[in-house]
Amino acid sequence: MSTITPKILPPTPSATNSPLLIGDLLESGVRMAGRNQIVYRDQCRHDYRHFRERVHQLAHTLTALGVNAGDVVAVLDWDSHRYLECFFAIPMIGAVLHTVNVRLSPEQILYTMEHAEDVFVLVHEDFVPLLEPLADKLPNIRGYLLCQEEAKDVSTSLPLVGEFEALLSEQPDYYNFPTFDENAVATLFYTTGTTGNPKGVFFTHRQLVLHTLGEASTFQAPGCELLNRDKVYMPITPMFHVHAWGVPYTATLMGATQVYPGRYEPEMLVKLLVSEKVDFSHCVPTLLNMVVSADAVASKQVDLSGWKVLVGGSALTQALASRAWSLGIDTRSAYGMSETCPLLTADILPRDVGKADFDTQLPWRCKAGLPVPLVKLQVVDVDGKPLPHDGKSVGEVRAQAPWLTQAYYKEEQRSEELWRDGWLHTGDVGSIDEHGFLTISDRIKDVIKTGGEWLSSLELESYISQCPGVAEVAVIGIADDKWGERPAALVVPSDLSNPPTAEDVQAFMEQFVKQGAINRWGIPSLIRVVDEIPKTSVGKLDKKRIRTEV
Amino acid sequence: MSTITPKILPPTPSATNSPLLIGDLLESGVRMAGRNQIVYRDQCRHDYRHFRERVHQLAHTLTALGVNAGDVVAVLDWDSHRYLECFFAIPMIGAVLHTVNVRLSPEQILYTMEHAEDVFVLVHEDFVPLLEPLADKLPNIRGYLLCQEEAKDVSTSLPLVGEFEALLSEQPDYYNFPTFDENAVATLFYTTGTTGNPKGVFFTHRQLVLHTLGEASTFQAPGCELLNRDKVYMPITPMFHVHAWGVPYTATLMGATQVYPGRYEPEMLVKLLVSEKVDFSHCVPTLLNMVVSADAVASKQVDLSGWKVLVGGSALTQALASRAWSLGIDTRSAYGMSETCPLLTADILPRDVGKADFDTQLPWRCKAGLPVPLVKLQVVDVDGKPLPHDGKSVGEVRAQAPWLTQAYYKEEQRSEELWRDGWLHTGDVGSIDEHGFLTISDRIKDVIKTGGEWLSSLELESYISQCPGVAEVAVIGIADDKWGERPAALVVPSDLSNPPTAEDVQAFMEQFVKQGAINRWGIPSLIRVVDEIPKTSVGKLDKKRIRTEV
Repeated sequence: MSTITPKILPPTPSATNSPLLIGDLLESGVRMAGRNQIVYRDQCRHDYRHFRERVHQLAHTLTALGVNAGDVVAVLDWDSHRYLECFFAIPMIGAVLHTVNVRLSPEQILYTMEHAEDVFVLVHEDFVPLLEPLADKLPNIRGYLLCQEEAKDVSTSLPLVGEFEALLSEQPDYYNFPTFDENAVATLFYTTGTTGNPKGVFFTHRQLVLHTLGEASTFQAPGCELLNRDKVYMPITPMFHVHAWGVPYTATLMGATQVYPGRYEPEMLVKLLVSEKVDFSHCVPTLLNMVVSADAVASKQVDLSGWKVLVGGSALTQALASRAWSLGIDTRSAYGMSETCPLLTADILPRDVGKADFDTQLPWRCKAGLPVPLVKLQVVDVDGKPLPHDGKSVGEVRAQAPWLTQAYYKEEQRSEELWRDGWLHTGDVGSIDEHGFLTISDRIKDVIKTGGEWLSSLELESYISQCPGVAEVAVIGIADDKWGERPAALVVPSDLSNPPTAEDVQAFMEQFVKQGAINRWGIPSLIRVVDEIPKTSVGKLDKKRIRTEV
Repeated sequence: MSTITPKILPPTPSATNSPLLIGDLLESGVRMAGRNQIVYRDQCRHDYRHFRERVHQLAHTLTALGVNAGDVVAVLDWDSHRYLECFFAIPMIGAVLHTVNVRLSPEQILYTMEHAEDVFVLVHEDFVPLLEPLADKLPNIRGYLLCQEEAKDVSTSLPLVGEFEALLSEQPDYYNFPTFDENAVATLFYTTGTTGNPKGVFFTHRQLVLHTLGEASTFQAPGCELLNRDKVYMPITPMFHVHAWGVPYTATLMGATQVYPGRYEPEMLVKLLVSEKVDFSHCVPTLLNMVVSADAVASKQVDLSGWKVLVGGSALTQALASRAWSLGIDTRSAYGMSETCPLLTADILPRDVGKADFDTQLPWRCKAGLPVPLVKLQVVDVDGKPLPHDGKSVGEVRAQAPWLTQAYYKEEQRSEELWRDGWLHTGDVGSIDEHGFLTISDRIKDVIKTGGEWLSSLELESYISQCPGVAEVAVIGIADDKWGERPAALVVPSDLSNPPTAEDVQAFMEQFVKQGAINRWGIPSLIRVVDEIPKTSVGKLDKKRIRTEV
């Protein structure tokens, strides 16, 4: 804040400056399209009015079970209408929603539940066996509410307080939700770094409402046009992971039809995409790859044309975007991270690019994109000096926006690494072009320093992914006496019975050297063909593990 | 605020919670469409990048002239690119933009400039004669900056400090704008009520940013679809009046092409609508009527089909909407008031209505519409009890939203009439239907109490407006010994040489009695045919003056 003194005036005693609270998003959706539906697999569907009633019933249920404002409530569930109800009911009573990352190890889950100081748990029956051995070590948890697909007896050592549907049905469908400070924490979850314990990231009501408005403005803009009231939305990013990029909140604001697929089985995903006529999804490249590789899709037995997919988490490669396009699937990139709620940039194509042919659009669609409204982005050199927007100058990406996590939960030191000089440091390196489009070239720690130059592992991955016979690739730097580091690649063949050789890949890379796109030392000296590449719990290449395996 | 205690956590010392400031809207527009244009009549046009440079130059100019944060700066100009630059530069340096209502009487203008404590004035040459006799009574004004259409000498007693374009051109095009509290006042203007002095209404940076996001979300929604990056926008609501409904801020956020028409001459408006291919405007019914009645339009020499017009300020009648539709013009309603920034509701047509024929859509388009995101609306009875959403129960409309003026400027008592029980009381009466659509039936003070029933003067105006030969109508209540009040009407004929008679109008009204739409006592007993109906400075029916003239 500067030292200038603008005019600030006191309000009338009775005036309400309407704090930004999550409940307003729900009310907007009901007004926009009370008859649009929330769908859960092929098991249940109800309209927005009923969705609101269920949120009110869930709030009564939790209150009756002793959950108070300020309490942290853990949820372990697949992506479902129930989870969406938790997205609203828990913060709306002033409690904190802890979306537990069910893909972590039991030890890590125990760590996050202890660290978050959870006092109440909603648990899907599939995760009961996971929690049973942990319960003794979580003495502060006052109750476990069971979520079931259909009512049946469960034998468990967990001290259950009842079943979700049964308890909801006993409650009135109107709850007089309180009004409170918009800076109250609404959500909390844990992100896994490459070192140390998972880090808690939290967001306030204000932040989530503003993120939703920024996302809504972006998703409706020409050149993007992903989501509105008349579209059908299905996430393929888990709801425990940055609230599925906040899109369930945005879809609710708009009153869009929402489809929740439960756990991510390719057959069910494809079935729902077709039967519910899904218009829009978002996911990491790995999951998009899984869907387009599903038998029914690859063989064109089902038609996914018109489906729009926003890809983030890792770079969308031109190879994957082209493959999707050949099936009529419209992909584009977004950029952000757990700490940023997550949306920082999205591909809003300039008017002339949006009218051009796909080959012209392709490189634009694979860039991270344009900062969304209210986001400030810089790429800075090692001294923190902003670099020009010339599309060439590469530096660390840092951000300001009204929806960035203000700290890691109870982690003073790590918070001060994240926030420096009033900017959130993303740990990514990239460049911004004259149009304002961001391109991410790498994680700072994954950049390969060779012969005094910086090589982007992501760029090399993008080139290698275009080599015939290559389905997936990961590039890391390995120590080299002469060059400092040299690139090495793990390659998964598309046909295991006929894999490309290291020499095939190296020969393929020659064209990029000739084009001047990379230097000769950008051709990996070591290329290993493998069945599978290690991934993190959210589907990203796990370069920490890859380094130990090369 | 309730007494619950949600969890509020301190941020990392270096974290920036990005206050909501108007400058962010400008940055968004430049990124979205740096090459789209800002157009002023047929005189000047420049792109968003140059627009930003000019905002920075204006900030330098004002700072060099001694304008500080917290100072109130008055602007008297026609709708122009300069005014748009003032919308940004003045608040962005922490000063307060006072948009002077140039249609007020000189005494009222003097009152508002004294009351606002203006210290600096930007004045278009056309308004120099207006200010000259006032300047002696405004001793605190430190300087007058002249705005001219083209550089020429002006002889005036005003102590001019220079000319807008000349001073801007001397300044650098980058200003390091400060960051400050989002609750700083950004804008101030005066609204004329029916009694007493004009009332000052003010809005903060936070409020204007949130209003912009709410408006953007609404204007891009299906069933509304008024404005986006690829559309051309031209206001026909003066920029001094509630910042032209805040739409210049919204258009800037989106990067839309903006056209400013100067003063509202029908020929110039029509010329710009055609030459600039304007997609979207907003205005009061009187101005829409003026445009569709312009010779070139009415005679179909020019084609305005595809033009979308949002109508507010007074009710859009079915007659005017139908007349516009016959020319291919798409009209719909919005509702709000100076005190509400202004947007509270807008016609977002439900999906099935949007697909229906025009006759089905017509009544929907004439309703006030659906509350926009983050707005809470109630209609309440005389005891403040919310009435059901049945489309029938009529009561006073009250609102909560994060963009309502928090007080009248330096008017404690009047502020407490506006804000009661935590709600802003609009002074309008209306009903909300099962879809959530608001219909305004009248101003509380204009409701006609007759024979124990309430008659809506607006509803009667709507019916009478459909009578052949009637161009405009105003209905008021006049005292009646037997009935308490009886309705009376002033009627402007569409053809002055062949006006309808009072009996013609009364006979026409019989059909609505037969349909059960109104009771027999809804037929005005007194109907006067007049050349003109008194209007307020913003073009609304001036019922206070009408009462004195009937």
